[in-house]
Amino acid sequence: MPPVPPPPVVQAAPDPAEPQPVDWRSIPPDEIMVMRLADGHEVLIRLAARMVPRHIENIRRLIAARWWDGLSIYRVQENWVAQWGDRTEKRPLPPGTAARVAPEFELATPPAVTPMVRPDAYSTWSGVTADGWPVAGDGRAAWLVHCYGSVGVARDDAPDSGNGAELFTPIGRGGARRLDRNYAVVGRVMEGMQYLSALPRSDASDGVYADVGRDKGIAWVRLASDLPAADRPRLEYRTADNPRYAAMIAKRERPAPPTVAVGAGVCDLPVGVRRAP
Amino acid sequence: MPPVPPPPVVQAAPDPAEPQPVDWRSIPPDEIMVMRLADGHEVLIRLAARMVPRHIENIRRLIAARWWDGLSIYRVQENWVAQWGDRTEKRPLPPGTAARVAPEFELATPPAVTPMVRPDAYSTWSGVTADGWPVAGDGRAAWLVHCYGSVGVARDDAPDSGNGAELFTPIGRGGARRLDRNYAVVGRVMEGMQYLSALPRSDASDGVYADVGRDKGIAWVRLASDLPAADRPRLEYRTADNPRYAAMIAKRERPAPPTVAVGAGVCDLPVGVRRAP
Repeated sequence: MPPVPPPPVVQAAPDPAEPQPVDWRSIPPDEIMVMRLADGHEVLIRLAARMVPRHIENIRRLIAARWWDGLSIYRVQENWVAQWGDRTEKRPLPPGTAARVAPEFELATPPAVTPMVRPDAYSTWSGVTADGWPVAGDGRAAWLVHCYGSVGVARDDAPDSGNGAELFTPIGRGGARRLDRNYAVVGRVMEGMQYLSALPRSDASDGVYADVGRDKGIAWVRLASDLPAADRPRLEYRTADNPRYAAMIAKRERPAPPTVAVGAGVCDLPVGVRRAP
Repeated sequence: MPPVPPPPVVQAAPDPAEPQPVDWRSIPPDEIMVMRLADGHEVLIRLAARMVPRHIENIRRLIAARWWDGLSIYRVQENWVAQWGDRTEKRPLPPGTAARVAPEFELATPPAVTPMVRPDAYSTWSGVTADGWPVAGDGRAAWLVHCYGSVGVARDDAPDSGNGAELFTPIGRGGARRLDRNYAVVGRVMEGMQYLSALPRSDASDGVYADVGRDKGIAWVRLASDLPAADRPRLEYRTADNPRYAAMIAKRERPAPPTVAVGAGVCDLPVGVRRAP
């Protein structure tokens, strides 16, 4: 008998939700905030430079003035936020930085998005901008949303009392989206979220560590563009203005059997970042 | 001149969203799972005894057989879950406990709820049962939802392969609600969530600590009813079938100025628990 012929090579159909190489774009190094903790771990934050330009201008000045060097993560509240900066709130801001920044709670220009199809408990619509930012809106305005890992600007009661010197990120479910339109979102953690989310929780009702010795020290904060080229983290974001991204949303919102479909919110989508290959 | 009369006493209007004493009810001590960690911290979990009775029956047998005593929290995956039980998945189950439990992913009887008004990205409707459980549903079925701090039953591919010996809780945003209807929710953390949520994250892709030495030890697990009366945690839940609870939902979904309204999801509501006064 003739030998049995080898089975035909079955090529798996390409997953329409998988990004193609062209979908990845560099994050400019002056839009990456590198926070080196005292224990050597790094948190990489993408800055929403074009969406909240006034805040990012001030944050870049604070970085240039080495504002955060030697400060700390001093507030870690269970199911709410981790916050860093000057726990005394009395240290003078560096010359050339603004103590008040006019609010950028909503975006000057509502951006085009790849939309979520499912309704959202917090807005009329939601979706992801071409360059990967989760946003929501109603008939009048649009805004960057407070997801787990978004970076927001702490402030006092006055809407213009935030300046970026004190920053926070939501570390739980806990409805951080109720901060939308009330606080300025200025960035998102791209890497190292676990060094914020796994910090011990404070027992104090405001979440500030009662014992300053529990603070997590910050060694320094720089823009990636400030670092020598060899030390610079090179990140790429996944663009959303393409059919692969829309297919990924559809897959999340209505997963394939045997999973029973249950939906997805805009904050449930993956952050969409990778190290440059 | 006569002395100036004292100013009238202004009595603040009662907040219609504040619970009244009658709104608090005891959680039966045989519906409280007490997990004492090796470091002395305790996690208190309310069991959904009447909603998923088959699973709770098996979990009570596992507790009676001291299944978890000396086991560990062995999987802590960033923005996903903390999971505890037997990391080897090879330890024989105690006699009298079931290795497979017929699924209770949906509730046998859709319960009455105090509803969320805002739409939900994961279901047709959502709300809170009279005895405080967050649920969601569509035209056909209802189910307990996977919120931050909900306790779910890990399983293999087969829907009946879960038995309660391996439990998990969502510790991030990360879309845990996509587990709804696919996994059995059996309880919710009432106290001590910070001892699960702040554990160091594993670097492994499946979230299991590569180094067994990083596991968080479990000293023992008991029902509160197993403990001497003096050591028993006495918890009360907030009932939801009253106008105060509906007012609380309304306040969360549409907060008062100066906060700009942004909505709320069923998992954003407070857990609604207190120590018995």
